[in-house]
Amino acid sequence: MRKKQKLLVAKIGGNIIEDQVQLQQFLADFAQLKQPKILIHGGGKEATKLAAKLGIETTMIAGRRVTTAEELDIVVQIYAGLVNKSIVATLQKYGCDAIGMSGADANAISADKRPAKPIDYGYAGDIKSVNGTSINKLIEIGLVPVFCAVTHDNKGQLLNTNADTIAAELAVAMSPYFETSLFYCFELPGVLTDIHDNDSVIEHINLETYNALKKAETIRDGMLPKLQNCFEALHRNLKEVHIANAEFISNPNCKHTKLTLQ
Amino acid sequence: MRKKQKLLVAKIGGNIIEDQVQLQQFLADFAQLKQPKILIHGGGKEATKLAAKLGIETTMIAGRRVTTAEELDIVVQIYAGLVNKSIVATLQKYGCDAIGMSGADANAISADKRPAKPIDYGYAGDIKSVNGTSINKLIEIGLVPVFCAVTHDNKGQLLNTNADTIAAELAVAMSPYFETSLFYCFELPGVLTDIHDNDSVIEHINLETYNALKKAETIRDGMLPKLQNCFEALHRNLKEVHIANAEFISNPNCKHTKLTLQ
Repeated sequence: MRKKQKLLVAKIGGNIIEDQVQLQQFLADFAQLKQPKILIHGGGKEATKLAAKLGIETTMIAGRRVTTAEELDIVVQIYAGLVNKSIVATLQKYGCDAIGMSGADANAISADKRPAKPIDYGYAGDIKSVNGTSINKLIEIGLVPVFCAVTHDNKGQLLNTNADTIAAELAVAMSPYFETSLFYCFELPGVLTDIHDNDSVIEHINLETYNALKKAETIRDGMLPKLQNCFEALHRNLKEVHIANAEFISNPNCKHTKLTLQ
Repeated sequence: MRKKQKLLVAKIGGNIIEDQVQLQQFLADFAQLKQPKILIHGGGKEATKLAAKLGIETTMIAGRRVTTAEELDIVVQIYAGLVNKSIVATLQKYGCDAIGMSGADANAISADKRPAKPIDYGYAGDIKSVNGTSINKLIEIGLVPVFCAVTHDNKGQLLNTNADTIAAELAVAMSPYFETSLFYCFELPGVLTDIHDNDSVIEHINLETYNALKKAETIRDGMLPKLQNCFEALHRNLKEVHIANAEFISNPNCKHTKLTLQ
């Protein structure tokens, strides 16, 4: 079998999207990478701002947006509209042939509306399947898919879906086609043993050390579901995950956290 | 030379986008067409509504939006976000593998910001070039591009661009690859000799009769720039243009106006 090409699946979150200087630098660096690549972005803070301007109060439960019909319109406008197209236009400026996508486009990501019990999150989608064949065709014709955190249910309904989860599912779905690595771009340099000390980066976590760090409660709070997500993806044939600062994109040897099973 | 495949480039405007029943029917019919196809849509009325909700007054000059920075954000949110993704999700429901696009996506449509003199239209874009090669690749892998009325300047700036013009430019740009026909979906059955009589459809207009109709002032007001646009496209190797009601999509033999040079 021919050796698979490398594919980078990178996810950028709210902190970088909010900061125009950081975002421009990240996109300039991302555009430079010559290998096949996919970008996933959030945009929650911008959506919350627009909702506030429209007098709509955003309800969050356990860090997740309750997506009413009104909020869904805002989410689609901001994620798939303003944020996605601004990123695509910027990547084009830097010579990267980006194509902005929601899960509905090219039927890339299908989801089910989350059951209303125990908690009704409204138009929130849980991913059912990722269309790796379709995404691969876009990459084969030289395009760089840029995904926002919107999916669809194949019945005409758009759904709000967690961007971290989309990134992990995309990375897994692309693994039959590529040697895929997943990169979560993070405001910190990686997973820290001491949240107040940026020098305390744990450079490698495997399944064994992950379980030990959980037990010792070194990994807790928001980092716990993030890492759980990552290890689930690793169990599904993803080769490696990197949790790192934006710097990683231009300097993959910078100090950061690498996750693998072994 | 191998006979070219047929391509339909269809443009739907505000009247159909506003009306959910008409829009669903149109998209169901459009999805049924087995030939390669491209859809272009407006969304101006929805954008004006959101602007009003945000307390932003929309200025129109000669029927064209003055696109301030604030208005541009709204235009991108509504056109590329809400309207585009709703159409794409609906087409997917009907089994049509649509992909939503702005001119920035896949670098499909490049434009220049319109000079601020004599009238400053703000972030309005005049089309410079259409990337037929790139759009053709998307069609070749089985996708149906759905364009909103947003372009980019290749320097990172998104621009608001007239949807009628995008449709004509796309049709011309795709003509080297396909036997292309352009369809403007219209609230009336076609170009009428008497605006109050839907039975007065002019079934065929060529360059000669167009000039005669202009001279007689049978064609005037908003129809004049529309037809001028069409004849410019015909002069640039587009084979035919149809101005017709939505019915045309499912019944191309219905009474409507067909424009050709000869």
